[in-house]
Amino acid sequence: MGYTETDWRAINTIRTLAADATFHSNSGHPGAPMGMAPVAHVLFNKFMKFNPKNPKWLNRDRFVLSNGHGCMLQYALLHLYGYELSIDDLKKFRSVDSITPGHPEAHDTPGIEVTTGPLGQGISNAVGLAIAQAHTAATFNEDGFPIVDNYTYTFLGDGCLMEGVSGEASSLAGHLQLGNLIAIYDDNHISIDGDTNVAFTEDVVKRYESFGWHVVTVGDGDNDLDGIEAAIKQCQEVKDKPSMIKLRTTIGFGSLNQGTHGVHGSPLKADDIKQLKEKFGFNPEQSFAVAQEVYDLYNKHAAEGAAAEQEWNKMFESYGQKHQAKHADLIRRQKGDLPEGWEKNLPTYTPSDSAVASRKLSEIVLQKIHQVLPELVGGSADLTGSNLTRWKDAVDFQPPSTGLGDYSGRYIRYGVREHGMGAIMNGLAAYGTIIPYGGTFLNFVSYAAGAVRLSALSQVRNIWVATHDSIGLGEDGPTHQPIETLAHFRALPNCMVWRPADGNETSAAYYVALTQKHTPSIIALSRQNLPQLEGSTVANAAKGGYVLHEVEGADVTLVSTGSEVCICVDAVKYLAEKHNIKARIVSMPCFEVFDAQSKEYRLSVLPDGIPSMSVEVMSTMGWERYTHEQFGINRFGASGAYLDVYKKFEFTAEGISKRAVATVDFWKSVPNIRSPINRAFQQMI
Amino acid sequence: MGYTETDWRAINTIRTLAADATFHSNSGHPGAPMGMAPVAHVLFNKFMKFNPKNPKWLNRDRFVLSNGHGCMLQYALLHLYGYELSIDDLKKFRSVDSITPGHPEAHDTPGIEVTTGPLGQGISNAVGLAIAQAHTAATFNEDGFPIVDNYTYTFLGDGCLMEGVSGEASSLAGHLQLGNLIAIYDDNHISIDGDTNVAFTEDVVKRYESFGWHVVTVGDGDNDLDGIEAAIKQCQEVKDKPSMIKLRTTIGFGSLNQGTHGVHGSPLKADDIKQLKEKFGFNPEQSFAVAQEVYDLYNKHAAEGAAAEQEWNKMFESYGQKHQAKHADLIRRQKGDLPEGWEKNLPTYTPSDSAVASRKLSEIVLQKIHQVLPELVGGSADLTGSNLTRWKDAVDFQPPSTGLGDYSGRYIRYGVREHGMGAIMNGLAAYGTIIPYGGTFLNFVSYAAGAVRLSALSQVRNIWVATHDSIGLGEDGPTHQPIETLAHFRALPNCMVWRPADGNETSAAYYVALTQKHTPSIIALSRQNLPQLEGSTVANAAKGGYVLHEVEGADVTLVSTGSEVCICVDAVKYLAEKHNIKARIVSMPCFEVFDAQSKEYRLSVLPDGIPSMSVEVMSTMGWERYTHEQFGINRFGASGAYLDVYKKFEFTAEGISKRAVATVDFWKSVPNIRSPINRAFQQMI
Repeated sequence: MGYTETDWRAINTIRTLAADATFHSNSGHPGAPMGMAPVAHVLFNKFMKFNPKNPKWLNRDRFVLSNGHGCMLQYALLHLYGYELSIDDLKKFRSVDSITPGHPEAHDTPGIEVTTGPLGQGISNAVGLAIAQAHTAATFNEDGFPIVDNYTYTFLGDGCLMEGVSGEASSLAGHLQLGNLIAIYDDNHISIDGDTNVAFTEDVVKRYESFGWHVVTVGDGDNDLDGIEAAIKQCQEVKDKPSMIKLRTTIGFGSLNQGTHGVHGSPLKADDIKQLKEKFGFNPEQSFAVAQEVYDLYNKHAAEGAAAEQEWNKMFESYGQKHQAKHADLIRRQKGDLPEGWEKNLPTYTPSDSAVASRKLSEIVLQKIHQVLPELVGGSADLTGSNLTRWKDAVDFQPPSTGLGDYSGRYIRYGVREHGMGAIMNGLAAYGTIIPYGGTFLNFVSYAAGAVRLSALSQVRNIWVATHDSIGLGEDGPTHQPIETLAHFRALPNCMVWRPADGNETSAAYYVALTQKHTPSIIALSRQNLPQLEGSTVANAAKGGYVLHEVEGADVTLVSTGSEVCICVDAVKYLAEKHNIKARIVSMPCFEVFDAQSKEYRLSVLPDGIPSMSVEVMSTMGWERYTHEQFGINRFGASGAYLDVYKKFEFTAEGISKRAVATVDFWKSVPNIRSPINRAFQQMI
Repeated sequence: MGYTETDWRAINTIRTLAADATFHSNSGHPGAPMGMAPVAHVLFNKFMKFNPKNPKWLNRDRFVLSNGHGCMLQYALLHLYGYELSIDDLKKFRSVDSITPGHPEAHDTPGIEVTTGPLGQGISNAVGLAIAQAHTAATFNEDGFPIVDNYTYTFLGDGCLMEGVSGEASSLAGHLQLGNLIAIYDDNHISIDGDTNVAFTEDVVKRYESFGWHVVTVGDGDNDLDGIEAAIKQCQEVKDKPSMIKLRTTIGFGSLNQGTHGVHGSPLKADDIKQLKEKFGFNPEQSFAVAQEVYDLYNKHAAEGAAAEQEWNKMFESYGQKHQAKHADLIRRQKGDLPEGWEKNLPTYTPSDSAVASRKLSEIVLQKIHQVLPELVGGSADLTGSNLTRWKDAVDFQPPSTGLGDYSGRYIRYGVREHGMGAIMNGLAAYGTIIPYGGTFLNFVSYAAGAVRLSALSQVRNIWVATHDSIGLGEDGPTHQPIETLAHFRALPNCMVWRPADGNETSAAYYVALTQKHTPSIIALSRQNLPQLEGSTVANAAKGGYVLHEVEGADVTLVSTGSEVCICVDAVKYLAEKHNIKARIVSMPCFEVFDAQSKEYRLSVLPDGIPSMSVEVMSTMGWERYTHEQFGINRFGASGAYLDVYKKFEFTAEGISKRAVATVDFWKSVPNIRSPINRAFQQMI
C-alpha cells in the first residue's frame, strides 16, 4: 500500500531495461519482463527477504523464474538491488561468456537459485525448495530459534502450466500441504502460437484447487499494486496449502504491440522503444538508464535485507550455544562437506560373501550410511519395494495432519511422477542443506530427461537409484528394459552414470556420487543377484574403471559393467578351457570418472597391444571409445525369465567367448594394436 | 441390463485366467485384471464393436489398456472372443518369444492397438486415436455413409493419472472436445507404495472437469454392472466432451489379499487361488479352465461384430461407387502406401540456390507435399513460427464451435506439451489413416523420450520436426542447446535420426521417413542458414551417408552432418592451402540408414587406408563407430550469437583443420589403416 511515483518509476525502469537489453543483443523475450514488472516490484520490495551482498544466506526467501525466457526481469532486479551484476553485464545480455545468458543459469550468476528456461521445471524446482525449507525447519528450528522460515516464490506462465512436469510437482505440493510456497501465474493469454485459446482452455484455478492449492485471482496485474500486495499477503497467511495467484497481465505492457505474441520472443523495434520511454517519462535518447531514486528505493530494501541477515546471524550464533551439534551440522551441510569418516560406514565385501542384487546392495548402503549422513533425503516414484530405497524405520516426509509422517521425515513418497521427482530433487539440492536421491526403474529415468539435464547443467548433487537396469529385469519385457538409456546419460555432460558389478562397486558408486559436490549421478542397479567378485575393491571401482582380472600374455581384454562382469569371469574360464585363450577383465562402472583419470592409468587398464571387447546387455553406442569390438544389444529386449532372456541374446560364457575368439582372430593380423585411449587430439570439455 | 449367472461366470473366468497365468509364469500383475473384470465385461460385451477375425477393421472401436501391467485382462478377453490368441498363448504369458509379453505390444499381438506399460502413455495414445477418428470422420464421412464413427475406450489407473504426460494429453483432449473418447479410471486406491493416500490425494473428478471433461462416478465397480452400463451409455451420449468414469473397484477382487498392494504386482499363492476358484464355483483343481457357456456368450458378441463389419463392408462398397476418390484414398492409406509419384513433389536444389535454414527447407517440403499426401497431419508444441511446421493456408484441427478451425483440419495446436504430443502422435499413427508429424526444438524431444521410445518399439511412422538442433540456435543458450540428444536417439533401436546438411538432404530425410512404414524419424534441423552443397543429391542422402567430396590420394576423411558439413567444405580448402593436405568429405545424415547399406558400400564411403575424423557440434558419443577421431562438444554450450558460439568451440575452417592435421599426423605411422566399418563380428539386431 502507499505506492508512489517512485515505485512506478522503478517498475518502468525494469521494463525499459528489458526492452533495451533485448534490443541491444537483438535477441530475447521482452514481453514477460514488461508484463510482470509490477508484480516483481511488489514481491521483491514489499515481501522478499534477501541480502544482495550474500546471495547464499540460508534463510533468504527463494525466488524462481519458471518462465526463464523472461530472465531480463530477474537480471534487471538483481542489478537494481545491488547483486554482483552490473549495467555492463546487462549490456552483455545473451553474449558469449556473460553472466547474463539467454536463460538463467544458477552456477554462473549470483542470485539465481536454479537454472530455468525449459518450461515446467522452475515451478517444480520451487516445490523442491519448499520441501527443503519445511524439512530443514522441522529438523533444525527450536523454540525461539526459527532458523529457517523463508518462503519460496515462483513466477510461471502458460507454458509452464501446460507441461506435465509442473502438474506432477504441483499435485504432490498440494498433497504435502506446502504453505511456504507461493506461485504467481502470469495469465497473459499469449503463448508462441498466439492466443492461448488455440490450445489451452482448461480452468487453471479449478485444476489447482483440485490439487489442494489455495488460489487467488488478481484481475489487473498491470496497475493494481495494492491488489497484488493483498493477494500475496493472503497467500502468506494460508499455512497448510501452497498458493497460486492467477494474475491477469498484459504481455509487453507499454509496447505498441502489447498483448500480442509479437512481443513474446523478439526485441521491440527502435521506434517502439522510443514511444515506450516517452510514455513512461524516460529520456528516449538514453539506454540502460536508471534514475538514482530507483537505486535508492531498492538499496533501501537491500539494506533491510542485510540487516535482517545480521539479526539472523546473531540468532544463529546464540543457537550455536544452545544447540551446538545442530549448529555445527547446519554449517557443515551448507558447505556441502560430509562428516569426517562417514565413508567408514560403507560396506565392503569379499568373494565369499553371498550373491546379492545390486539394488539390494544399494539398500544396504543406504541402511548403513543414513544415520551418519542426516542430509540424505530419499524417495521413490512409487517403486519403494522394487527400488529398495527406504531404510528400515525411515519416517515419511508427510504433513503431520495425515498421520503418515512429519516434515522431519527423510523419505518422500513421490508417486508415479519421475519427471516431477527429478525436478523436485533439483530444488532440494539447490536449497543447500540436503542431498537428495530418488528411485525408479532405469528405463523411466528417461521420463525425467528434462530434469536430469538441468541437474547436470546446474551442477547439483543428486542421485538416481535406477534399478531394474537391463533385460535382466526379465518378464516385464521390452517396454521396461533399457537399451539406449546408458548411452543417453553417458553422453550428457557432467553426469556420472554408474553400473556397479557387485557390493564393493556399489559402495564405490555411492562414495563418488556423494563426494562429488557438483555432479549428479545415476546408479544403475540390477534386479537379479550378483556374486561378490574377486579383485573388486571400493578404491579400484572409485576410479571408474580398473583391471578386475589380470593375466600375463593376455590375448584379449573383456571390458564390462554391472551384471555382465560376472559372466565375463565365467567366460575367462571358458576361453581358457575351450579355446586356450587368455583373457583379462576390466570392470568399468563409470565412464565419466574413468575419463578423469590420468592417461597413464587409463592406458594401464586398456593397454596397447591387445584387442578389447566390451560386454554390456544394451546399446553398444559409446563403447567404441574404449574397446575395439563391442558385444551388446542394438534392438529391443524380450519378455521372459531373466536367464532365458540372457540366453536368447547369448550373454552367456559361451556367447561371450564366441565373440572374444572372433575378436582375437580379427585383430591377429594387426601389428602394434593401438588402445582406443590414444587419441590424435584432446576433446574439448 | 439383465445380467445373468453366465455374465458373472465370464467375469470370474477372466479373474481366474489372470490368477492362473500369473501363477503359471510366476510373474505379473493379477490385481488390476481381477478388479476390472466386471467393467471389461460390460464394455466389451455390451458396447464394443469389433471383429476378432479382422482385428484391423477400420471402424472397430479402439480399446487401450493404459495400465498395461494389467495385460492379462486384455489377453484373457482376446482369447475368449476368439482372436488369434490360444489358451497355450496364455500359458506362455511372460515367456520369451510369446505373443503374451509382460506388457501389451501392438506389433506382435492381434487385437492390441498400442504398446502400453510405461504409465500415462496409453490414455495419451487414446487421445491420439480419438483425434484420428474425428479427423477421419470429418474427412471421409458423407451423407448416409458414416464410414468411421467408432469410439475409443481406455482403462487407466492411479499411476497413469499421476504421470504428467496424461495431464498434457487430457487437457488437450478437453480443449478439442473429443466426445468419442471414454476413459475408465480404475479407482482402486492402491499403488505400489501402498494406499494412494501417501502421495495422490488430489480431486481427480475436479481436475478432469477443469480440463473440460464430462465425469461420472460409479461407486461399486465390483458388483454394479447395471451402474457401469448406465455410466458408459451416458458418456456415449455426451458428444462435445471426452468422458471419464471414475470407477471404485477392489484390486485383486476375490483374493484373500484383495484391496491391498499385495495383489498388485505378484501372483497369488496357490491356496489363495484355490479358495478363489471355490468361491467362484470353479473347480479348484483346474487351471486355465473356460466353461463353454462363456465361450458361447463371447462368441455371440464376436459374431455380431463380424456381422457389423460385413454390413460396413457393404456400405463401404457403395460409398466407393458414389465417392470413388475418397474410397480409393482410404484403402490406400490403410495399407500405408503413398500415392504413386508423390516424391516428384520433393524439392531439389543446386549449389547456385541460396542458403536457407534447414527448418525452412523442411517447411518448403511440407508446403510442396501436403496436397499430394493428404494423410499428413502435423502440428507443433507451441513453436509453430520457429519450427515452421505449418503450411500456408493450413486449417487447424479444432472443434468447429471455436471458430478456429474444424475437425477436417490437418494442423494440431498441441500447446507446450512435447510428451503429450509424442504420445498422441503414436495414437494418430496407430489409427491407420494418418501419418503424423510434430514440431519442437530438438532439445525438447527429450521431454518426450518415453513416447519416442514407444514409437520405435511399436514400429509406427511418426516424424519429429526437431528444429534449433544445436549450439547454432545461439542466444537461447545451454538450456536449449542439445549436446546428448542425437546420441540418445541414435542409440534407440528402430529410430531414424536425420540431420540434413542442405535442401537435397532435407528432401531425402522426408523421403525415407515417409516411405519407411515401421520406423519413426527425428529430423534435426538448423535455425541458421545453410548453403546448398556441391555433391549432395536426394538419392545419395537417402543412403544415410555418402561421399560429398572426393579427392584422389586423400590424406583424411572428414565425416560430418547438418550445419557442420558446409564448414568442412571450407576446411577442405583451408587444409589444401595452408597445410597441403587433401581431405575428402562424407556427409552422414542418418546413422541408422547408413548402417542398413551393404558393407561394400559402407567401405566405399569410409574406406580402409585413410584416417577419418567426425565433425559435429555435440557429443562425440557414437562417432567412434564410424571414424578414427572425433571433433565434438562434450560439455554444455554457450549463450551468444551463433557465429560467436561456433567460434568459441572452434567449429571453423581453421578449428577443423587444426584437428584434421593432428589426425593425419597421429595416424601417419600406422600401416594399413583399418576403416571402423570392419568388425570382428556382426552386431545382434
